[in-house]
Amino acid sequence: MKRRQLIKAGAIGAAVMGAAGCRQQPAANCEQGDRANDRYEWKMVTAWPKNFPGLGAGAQFLADAITQMSGGRLTVKVYGGGELVPAFEVFDAVSAGTAQIGHSAAYYWKGKLPEAQFFGAVPFGMNANEMNAWLYHGGGLELWQEAYRPFGLRPMPAGQSGVQMGGWFNKEINSKEDIKGLVMRIPGMGGDVLSRAGGTPQALPGAELFTALQTGTIDATEWVGPYNDLAFGLYQAAQFYYYPGWHEPTACIEAIINQQAYDDLPEDLQQVVDMAAMAANQNMLSEYLANNQRALEVLQSEHQVQLRAFPAEVLEEFKGYAAEVLTELSQVSPLSARIYDSYQTFAQQTNRWLEVSELAYLQAR
Amino acid sequence: MKRRQLIKAGAIGAAVMGAAGCRQQPAANCEQGDRANDRYEWKMVTAWPKNFPGLGAGAQFLADAITQMSGGRLTVKVYGGGELVPAFEVFDAVSAGTAQIGHSAAYYWKGKLPEAQFFGAVPFGMNANEMNAWLYHGGGLELWQEAYRPFGLRPMPAGQSGVQMGGWFNKEINSKEDIKGLVMRIPGMGGDVLSRAGGTPQALPGAELFTALQTGTIDATEWVGPYNDLAFGLYQAAQFYYYPGWHEPTACIEAIINQQAYDDLPEDLQQVVDMAAMAANQNMLSEYLANNQRALEVLQSEHQVQLRAFPAEVLEEFKGYAAEVLTELSQVSPLSARIYDSYQTFAQQTNRWLEVSELAYLQAR
Repeated sequence: MKRRQLIKAGAIGAAVMGAAGCRQQPAANCEQGDRANDRYEWKMVTAWPKNFPGLGAGAQFLADAITQMSGGRLTVKVYGGGELVPAFEVFDAVSAGTAQIGHSAAYYWKGKLPEAQFFGAVPFGMNANEMNAWLYHGGGLELWQEAYRPFGLRPMPAGQSGVQMGGWFNKEINSKEDIKGLVMRIPGMGGDVLSRAGGTPQALPGAELFTALQTGTIDATEWVGPYNDLAFGLYQAAQFYYYPGWHEPTACIEAIINQQAYDDLPEDLQQVVDMAAMAANQNMLSEYLANNQRALEVLQSEHQVQLRAFPAEVLEEFKGYAAEVLTELSQVSPLSARIYDSYQTFAQQTNRWLEVSELAYLQAR
Repeated sequence: MKRRQLIKAGAIGAAVMGAAGCRQQPAANCEQGDRANDRYEWKMVTAWPKNFPGLGAGAQFLADAITQMSGGRLTVKVYGGGELVPAFEVFDAVSAGTAQIGHSAAYYWKGKLPEAQFFGAVPFGMNANEMNAWLYHGGGLELWQEAYRPFGLRPMPAGQSGVQMGGWFNKEINSKEDIKGLVMRIPGMGGDVLSRAGGTPQALPGAELFTALQTGTIDATEWVGPYNDLAFGLYQAAQFYYYPGWHEPTACIEAIINQQAYDDLPEDLQQVVDMAAMAANQNMLSEYLANNQRALEVLQSEHQVQLRAFPAEVLEEFKGYAAEVLTELSQVSPLSARIYDSYQTFAQQTNRWLEVSELAYLQAR
């Protein structure tokens, strides 16, 4: 059987291995290791439209980095949400081996794994740099891997959105009273917080936001930040743009890999996958920062968007409810309690450091 | 000539190429491209002691990532400052091809290339995330490459320290008057600013800081931040630890590559080098953040270090002088003027965005 035929037939398994590996054909070229000429083809399923700004582009960046660094030995083909499997079935598809790698966000899986929310976004929690420090150098990644292991999945951070915006509102928020009765599209733990404050959270898919806001079905919606929000045209449906995004101080984007597919790779390609994810992580935050500031400029100068800060009393109330929601999440399992302890301890320590570094510097500048 | 002999002999040139490449030995294994079995050995010279926390560790991280991702086809051996060439000759050594890659900071080269300072650290300038956004997605990297091109060098960011501390002082700073006559170890543009404010900047190497501070030869010294400063024991020589590090809102660490050595690599290994640097960039900031907070905790709880914020009037004065120093730097060449324009335009825009995102969030939290 020729290698090219094998590759075609290989859709059956998680990884495609060339039969013409060096074990079969010992030659002078084979000093690199027996598996250096094996080839693998991976499918990447994603929770976003293909090439969607920031998120979809980040998936493509990761796939290209792996393909190019491997010299084509490991090729990764990207499928947008709904192309191969629906956006919210990425986790299941990679777990089942339908695809070898997924690009998504951990809070989407809270239905089957509530603990996953710690690795997506935490209201009043860690920002992008803190999340990365916790994951890479604070024990966070090991806990994330432990949480996904029963599903045959290996998670890694592969991008950060940075601090998001608080959302688009068609009325001003001047006090805690203005939250009561507010119908707002805000999913996840942020929605739980809004609910406790007297609002009504909705979980509409992105494609429906604009119409729902324009027709008054909802009073407000959060999305991401200027870069993505400008592309959606949300400024045409609501005039007040609130900050800061207390509910998502960053969205941590994940690469999830089928553990068997990963184990089948030779060590150099495993390293390629790991380092590509780390590089993609760096790149996405930079892309968001550069484009958010450009988009904010356009929103203000061309579309007369009105920036508003949430009143302090509203933020204080949200913060109190966020602590409650997080405490309840910590009680769903012993693992959740351990993740909570690790997360909170790290967050408190970095907060003290950021007060004398990032925060003090931004205030002085 | 066998490949292993060639590798030994290869110390002569910038890159070592195996003669037993596929062109000479066509075989079924050679589908990856003619140069897939060529081997390269690179020397990395660095501006820091080997495995020095943060900086030296970052050099090793980069070298290991390249070596491992390439499956040993491109091996990178790290030399600490002074081992192969002195720390401050990294730029020249890589330019001359004595080494193929260097790990250092751009402001060290201001003597021969004043423009390089924009890519190291700028007083009251961009922080780590902003620098990366400017370099990767704001045109900064292209300008940096243009500046280094006449020297046959290809620069890339390969790490960020994050916001540094303002330094260790053996007396309190309560007003602008306290800066006059102050003898402080502070190199680069920060030193120029101090000088205009009436102080006397010194440029001592790191190894001499402790003794100079303890004996009163200097009144104050900046170094990096808690992680590195704790390791140096600086808390034993001065009791007041000032923030924020207005002079280095981040130190951008560079990987500089001999252009010829880079051009000699096949495309997949070029991509390995580029992505390894981007991953190393991500990793260093995370490592500093995680360890700075731990070290700050130790400095405060075990060594009774007294944290002090610079008075607002001192920071305002420094900020004014920093603008002067930067304007003068912009006048040294047409290229410097272009870099200044790009840097300042980007910095002003990101500052507006950070005010409603990072800054507003850190204040709300």
